[in-house]
Amino acid sequence: MEETCSAFLDYKTEKFVLTRNRKVGLLHRLLQLGILAYTFGWVLLFQKGYQEKDTDPHFSVITKLKGVSAIRVQGLGERLWDVADYVKPPQGESVFFLATNFITTPNQTQGLCPEHPSIPDGNCQRDSDCSAREPVVNGNGIKTGKCLRWNDTGGTCEIYGWCPVENKTLPRKPHLIEAGNFTLFIKNTVNFAKFNFSRTNVLKTTDGAYFKHCRYDALESPFCPVFRIRDMVESAGASFEELALKGAAVGLRIDWDCDADRAPSQCHPGYSFNLLDKGFNFRTASYYRAPLSPPSRSLLKLYGIRFDISVRGQAGKFSIVPTVVNVGTGAAFLGVATVVCDLVLLYLDAKADFYRSEKYEEAKPPKDKNDQAAS
Amino acid sequence: MEETCSAFLDYKTEKFVLTRNRKVGLLHRLLQLGILAYTFGWVLLFQKGYQEKDTDPHFSVITKLKGVSAIRVQGLGERLWDVADYVKPPQGESVFFLATNFITTPNQTQGLCPEHPSIPDGNCQRDSDCSAREPVVNGNGIKTGKCLRWNDTGGTCEIYGWCPVENKTLPRKPHLIEAGNFTLFIKNTVNFAKFNFSRTNVLKTTDGAYFKHCRYDALESPFCPVFRIRDMVESAGASFEELALKGAAVGLRIDWDCDADRAPSQCHPGYSFNLLDKGFNFRTASYYRAPLSPPSRSLLKLYGIRFDISVRGQAGKFSIVPTVVNVGTGAAFLGVATVVCDLVLLYLDAKADFYRSEKYEEAKPPKDKNDQAAS
Amino acid sequence: MEETCSAFLDYKTEKFVLTRNRKVGLLHRLLQLGILAYTFGWVLLFQKGYQEKDTDPHFSVITKLKGVSAIRVQGLGERLWDVADYVKPPQGESVFFLATNFITTPNQTQGLCPEHPSIPDGNCQRDSDCSAREPVVNGNGIKTGKCLRWNDTGGTCEIYGWCPVENKTLPRKPHLIEAGNFTLFIKNTVNFAKFNFSRTNVLKTTDGAYFKHCRYDALESPFCPVFRIRDMVESAGASFEELALKGAAVGLRIDWDCDADRAPSQCHPGYSFNLLDKGFNFRTASYYRAPLSPPSRSLLKLYGIRFDISVRGQAGKFSIVPTVVNVGTGAAFLGVATVVCDLVLLYLDAKADFYRSEKYEEAKPPKDKNDQAAS
Repeated sequence: MEETCSAFLDYKTEKFVLTRNRKVGLLHRLLQLGILAYTFGWVLLFQKGYQEKDTDPHFSVITKLKGVSAIRVQGLGERLWDVADYVKPPQGESVFFLATNFITTPNQTQGLCPEHPSIPDGNCQRDSDCSAREPVVNGNGIKTGKCLRWNDTGGTCEIYGWCPVENKTLPRKPHLIEAGNFTLFIKNTVNFAKFNFSRTNVLKTTDGAYFKHCRYDALESPFCPVFRIRDMVESAGASFEELALKGAAVGLRIDWDCDADRAPSQCHPGYSFNLLDKGFNFRTASYYRAPLSPPSRSLLKLYGIRFDISVRGQAGKFSIVPTVVNVGTGAAFLGVATVVCDLVLLYLDAKADFYRSEKYEEAKPPKDKNDQAAS
Repeated sequence: MEETCSAFLDYKTEKFVLTRNRKVGLLHRLLQLGILAYTFGWVLLFQKGYQEKDTDPHFSVITKLKGVSAIRVQGLGERLWDVADYVKPPQGESVFFLATNFITTPNQTQGLCPEHPSIPDGNCQRDSDCSAREPVVNGNGIKTGKCLRWNDTGGTCEIYGWCPVENKTLPRKPHLIEAGNFTLFIKNTVNFAKFNFSRTNVLKTTDGAYFKHCRYDALESPFCPVFRIRDMVESAGASFEELALKGAAVGLRIDWDCDADRAPSQCHPGYSFNLLDKGFNFRTASYYRAPLSPPSRSLLKLYGIRFDISVRGQAGKFSIVPTVVNVGTGAAFLGVATVVCDLVLLYLDAKADFYRSEKYEEAKPPKDKNDQAAS
Repeated sequence: MEETCSAFLDYKTEKFVLTRNRKVGLLHRLLQLGILAYTFGWVLLFQKGYQEKDTDPHFSVITKLKGVSAIRVQGLGERLWDVADYVKPPQGESVFFLATNFITTPNQTQGLCPEHPSIPDGNCQRDSDCSAREPVVNGNGIKTGKCLRWNDTGGTCEIYGWCPVENKTLPRKPHLIEAGNFTLFIKNTVNFAKFNFSRTNVLKTTDGAYFKHCRYDALESPFCPVFRIRDMVESAGASFEELALKGAAVGLRIDWDCDADRAPSQCHPGYSFNLLDKGFNFRTASYYRAPLSPPSRSLLKLYGIRFDISVRGQAGKFSIVPTVVNVGTGAAFLGVATVVCDLVLLYLDAKADFYRSEKYEEAKPPKDKNDQAAS
């Protein structure tokens, strides 16, 4: 059977006619089918166009690291690092830093000492290279005006600053290589205010010790909120040993896609890991004061992994307004199919002339005086 | 009077006719009315579809807590806590922690001591239960290989770590119960760059002492930016005493919905409070060093309320583009009403056969050679 | 030539006719032109409606400040401030504080001392003005019940707290005025997961020392990620000297607008600066403990500039679905032009009566029994 496109009047039989044109009719049906598939398949079913959305939930992220490691640093002996040492800031925020390596400069006091030779602006041949009272660019202090010569080929400016200056040699093996076995507990709660609907990633369990022993695994235990650091880094496609040496930034995204029309227990978060940046360090100092001695500090240059946890969430619930709007938009698109089809029939088809002559003929309204004056 | 649906040709009178069908006509008018109400009432007026929107303002949040409390801790005597003690971090950020309870472990030094009996992995019957140089899972140090027996039924492994280990007994009454009377000052500025338009929640006032005395109250003083902690917690639907004991996360959302077509003084923020999570604590340590004695630290396990202030803002301003697009979309929807109505008349109405026969009749274009070859 | 609007049947010549009405035809063509311009010019070309968008990239921001300054504080002598002193928090986050001025209160211990006279609630005439065990509102401690009279006109309550209390006199010139010459290095990486596409603002360069010497300048070196503090403040439209005295909040927004259909090297960030707020300070304390002396602390009230770096990003890539939907919506709008034009012709035109009578005539379907029963 041939398909119909648009109807128009056949003036010979004095009746509205359905055009019987196989190609244009097929085009018409294909367009209509595409629009129906888009509207019902894609917009309504796949994208859940029958639901009202809440894409902006309130949420909280609470993090807690666990683990200890004994570290032997040259000249300082053995020392235990626990959570109060290696996490900054300690408050369990969604962005935090886990130290994996460090350069320590203990017992700095304010005084005079030579600048580090690796700072270009601190190198000198003679005193005039070190303008007094100028800071060393990217350096550690203020030049005093003296050049301290190491040997005949040159030296470094004397500076006023925290002395001695930091040694730049990073250990070849991360001090805190055991941090890979530390665990991160993440408690994430989302609240969809529009639907009065809350969910957390920490499921209720009758086994009190479950969270002390479980470890997240995308396949085997996807609902366990305890993550091994090494697993997270490897899921982001990186090697823990490499990142631990010079630091990195790793992103963890928690995605909630909840259907409020279904049981709340079917709404679970998805976790994805992402290496955001390689190389991360910063300096921090602890200050000490003792009677009869000047103030001193311990400077730490910490290398490690910054974790950046972000949460995205959306929930949908059936609502009549988006359903009607989406169905209506689909119906409006159906009209487009007829317009396109008509244009093809009247202008592009092999017998376009016939269709055009059948459809249109000119007729003039009776002229009135205004029109005659205007023309 | 009967309503009209769509017009078509009545071939007996040789004129285009208006169908006079009461039910379909009524449906047609109802659809049109619904579309007009949706377009003008909902989209244009209620949702201000005639405005261009800026939903992504720059904003800053500055917070400042005020209050002091004297605390008597067993064995440490009385001690005053002020803002430098109980707020972490101190920088006045939008996410901050207010301590309300704590467990303090002063004078920890690195050495050997028994693990806490509450840690399952630290319990032992004999030395072989404590594998040397392995960290205690979820514990405080590295096992030395010795089992320190408390009595005949067992004991705990000896560990190398910060000793003595933390006591797990939380006081039954929050140490900082007076924190409920502390006040939080929030300064929030939003800047809608698209409209070059700025607003702050701290209104200008001629009374310099106003902000020292006012307290936010949703009904009586909704524009005062000073919040009592207890009021915030209770607005979130929780009991301050309960949250203060074990900690919690409370969300505060500031919503700006500004109409740039009206006076800027009519654009005020709305505050809403939300209990995000129950149970919140973390550990932090202060390090000390004294001549002739080993480094020591004071470990604090802090329980308290984490406040998480988030800001959402949108501003709208009249613009011709969204107005025309929204009116045009409404007009396009009107066409849908006719399509739906036509379909009902031609296929669902009791006299559909009559309408169909009146509207359509078949006519074939003259065949040409190509068509004959194809068929 | 006259323009056509809509076609209808002229019953005298028994043919469908094109209306020849100059004004309505012109309106029709203008409407069509406007819709085509909007669809193709604005939606498709300008707003790149042929692209699928990713507006929610993962990103990381790492910041690093460089610079040192020697400060002479009355009674404390000269002291060098470096990055471990003036940046809080030190972790290189996207929101950080750069100290530019401060009030220092060294050697505070817990004890009894008079409240500061500037606190209204701490002023008194007699002991009964100081209710024992009540905290001073907005003050520094707990009243003991004694009024310490300075002279005949009054005095301040004695308090238990950290003594002596903080002096409120801010230096007239910022202590750290040299902070204007400090530099901020920003490393920002964005990752558009939808298109598997990453970009960083730190371009690869063969000159290793480039980032040590370059300075961002919107015109001359827009790709250098090293910013001078004074330049940032001035780009935000403020004076560094003014902000350094009492503090401020400055926003820096990084905007990425990437076209994944073009070479990735053409996707660069734009930086914009924004003064968010004037006046910013907070208090922080360092705690000390020495044998044979009570615990003491150094209280610092820090004034300075809080930088708030936010990142927005979007990337687009050609996709067939948005292209078809946008073209289809444009086509649907074209139908609106005809509807509007028809309405004008039939109801607003000078010869509307003629057109109406030509187009419509009433005809009734044959009555059946149900209809007769209903009426």
